Amino acid sequence: MISVEEAKHIILKATQEFGVEETPFIKSVGRILKETIVADRDFPPFNRVSMDGIAIDFIAFQKGQRAFTIEGIQPAGSAQISLQNSENCIEVMTGAVLPKNTNAVIRYEDVEIKNGVARIMINEVFEFQNIHEKGKDRKVGETLIEKNIIISAAEIGVFATVGKSTIKVAKQPKIMILSTGDELVAVNDKPEEHQIRRSNVFTLVAALEHLKIESETSHITDDKPILMQKIAQFLNDYDVLLCSGAVSKGKFDFLPEVFDELGVKKRFHRVAQRPGKPFWMGETNTCKVFAFPGNPISTFVNCLMYFYPWYYKSVRVKTKEETAILTEDIIFKPNLTYFLQVKLSDKFGHTLATPIKGNGSGDLASLINADAFIQLPNDKTEFKTGENYPILRFRNF
Amino acid sequence: MISVEEAKHIILKATQEFGVEETPFIKSVGRILKETIVADRDFPPFNRVSMDGIAIDFIAFQKGQRAFTIEGIQPAGSAQISLQNSENCIEVMTGAVLPKNTNAVIRYEDVEIKNGVARIMINEVFEFQNIHEKGKDRKVGETLIEKNIIISAAEIGVFATVGKSTIKVAKQPKIMILSTGDELVAVNDKPEEHQIRRSNVFTLVAALEHLKIESETSHITDDKPILMQKIAQFLNDYDVLLCSGAVSKGKFDFLPEVFDELGVKKRFHRVAQRPGKPFWMGETNTCKVFAFPGNPISTFVNCLMYFYPWYYKSVRVKTKEETAILTEDIIFKPNLTYFLQVKLSDKFGHTLATPIKGNGSGDLASLINADAFIQLPNDKTEFKTGENYPILRFRNF
Repeated sequence: MISVEEAKHIILKATQEFGVEETPFIKSVGRILKETIVADRDFPPFNRVSMDGIAIDFIAFQKGQRAFTIEGIQPAGSAQISLQNSENCIEVMTGAVLPKNTNAVIRYEDVEIKNGVARIMINEVFEFQNIHEKGKDRKVGETLIEKNIIISAAEIGVFATVGKSTIKVAKQPKIMILSTGDELVAVNDKPEEHQIRRSNVFTLVAALEHLKIESETSHITDDKPILMQKIAQFLNDYDVLLCSGAVSKGKFDFLPEVFDELGVKKRFHRVAQRPGKPFWMGETNTCKVFAFPGNPISTFVNCLMYFYPWYYKSVRVKTKEETAILTEDIIFKPNLTYFLQVKLSDKFGHTLATPIKGNGSGDLASLINADAFIQLPNDKTEFKTGENYPILRFRNF
Repeated sequence: MISVEEAKHIILKATQEFGVEETPFIKSVGRILKETIVADRDFPPFNRVSMDGIAIDFIAFQKGQRAFTIEGIQPAGSAQISLQNSENCIEVMTGAVLPKNTNAVIRYEDVEIKNGVARIMINEVFEFQNIHEKGKDRKVGETLIEKNIIISAAEIGVFATVGKSTIKVAKQPKIMILSTGDELVAVNDKPEEHQIRRSNVFTLVAALEHLKIESETSHITDDKPILMQKIAQFLNDYDVLLCSGAVSKGKFDFLPEVFDELGVKKRFHRVAQRPGKPFWMGETNTCKVFAFPGNPISTFVNCLMYFYPWYYKSVRVKTKEETAILTEDIIFKPNLTYFLQVKLSDKFGHTLATPIKGNGSGDLASLINADAFIQLPNDKTEFKTGENYPILRFRNF
């Protein structure tokens, strides 16, 4: 049995490259950017009017002139016009190019317009006021977005701005999610008394959807020859197998020996944690195998704790650790890392973690009241109110 | 001009019902649950073995017996068998029904098996140990999930467990996202010097995707008759119009008068905030209109600040406010609520907000380095390091 830290270390050394593909920019939210986005022109690309009003030659104002005959209008989206007479003005709209021969914009609020003459009602005007100067935000060629980040709505706007209608993103791993266990029936079926419905594979499908990974699922009965045959095929066809169940000490927990016989190199089996202890991990040259214990909470916590960081490291995304503050004392004596379900709340910028009472790793419904697991290390048995520990969050505020 | 608080109050009074629809459970992550999920049977549905090992009649152990002849095996997924002789034992697997006439499970780690006899190697055994008792987690008919919550991977597992292959979720509003502004060209086009590409509508599409809302987009040139005709149609066909631009004081900012002439009741125009001040909001009997200012940051912050809470209240989801702690002093003198871009980090369970320098509301690229906006109220001008304020987060850790 190895520690949680060792298990994570081994997994993070076993990352994989999935390659790069192009996608329409508007479909890319949540995907991992795999190209550097640079400014295709200066931003703003011209001296941009940032208030509706009039544009003047500042020198005229400086000389004491306050009334300006309106010579023309410069709407947004029109080619630049020129102020012909430096004692006149041009009406300008937000987003317009600043007219040639002008260098200050006075907003409508500070102007009175009558009979084609604009009178400036304020005494302070600065050169270049209400003008967003060409190249002030970014210069052409400057990097706007570094690669290897998770794309959000903010990036979508930048892609559009620089004309990237398709962008390069990390290809997603091809993943098969596998359940075993003869007690499992389909969601649509009515179980006999000794049966339960398949649920872990769907929790995993949803957890992968959060990473924008589409996965497939399959169920295999606890029959070793069938397991051998199907898993051999899956190892060949997929980048990752996520399994749930059949890794403990039971007579029909065939997975570890099946993997061994199929040449999957075992990296570890059993991690000093609760829940999720019988976790088995191994790999072939082309496929990583995460075989999680079959209890619902075990499967879920191990996916968050091990698969997520493995995926992020594989696609080279740096994630930040998040912690939270216990609101109750917790005593946990076993020499195991304890992943405790907590409800999160925010108080004065502090993230508070309130333990949820579950009935152990089988009680999936207790997750409904939780937002995260808090990771209590195995070098202590008492965890005090006010102490902070890492969390694995599966729900936002 | 009204305050941010008044604007939000007015918007939250103008919520809408979108109705309910059925969806396959596996497609429901991020949607809003609209039915109560109850236990279709006890959980666990039977006395469930929770460790691989042997099941015995506890009385035999109590009487001092340590060696038990193995009478049979009870795998997971098989109908319940019975212990015939109370001095024997049955091998049992995790997830199996506890055999009849047994009431304690001793795990394999604590047993030695030779020639069909299991010898218990420990001296402490408790009645019902390693048995997850029928109905312990939940009783049949008990509520597992209340309605009006955002569905996560945790709920997906519960839906599967209780056999809900389709579930009732809130219908999504039908939304048209509209850009105006003759300076805008398509993402694929190469803009002339005085033009820029459309980007705000795509930021909004992505922001709605975060709510699992599919939206449509349209662009209309700054031509009043065309605006009248198209918007009349949109008001008729959609639940919500999100607009970007043409709400300020410019000569071609036709939207407020177009809405007025089309009978849209104005609720407010201009909110005391930066960025995003010229925000216009109104409604017909069937359509809400959020007309955001055309600057990229203004559009984005107003979508997060006003549209998100409006949507959540409309579908009856309770969201929690999140706050963060300033890491720098900020001075902001205008009598406006200030939405400042910040980078978030976590330290000892505290959410820290570090201001990002942007060049005003036009600098979309500055959002790339930010994770959220922090909302600094307009009743102060100095905001000190260590103070906490609400945040609008658009990126997770």
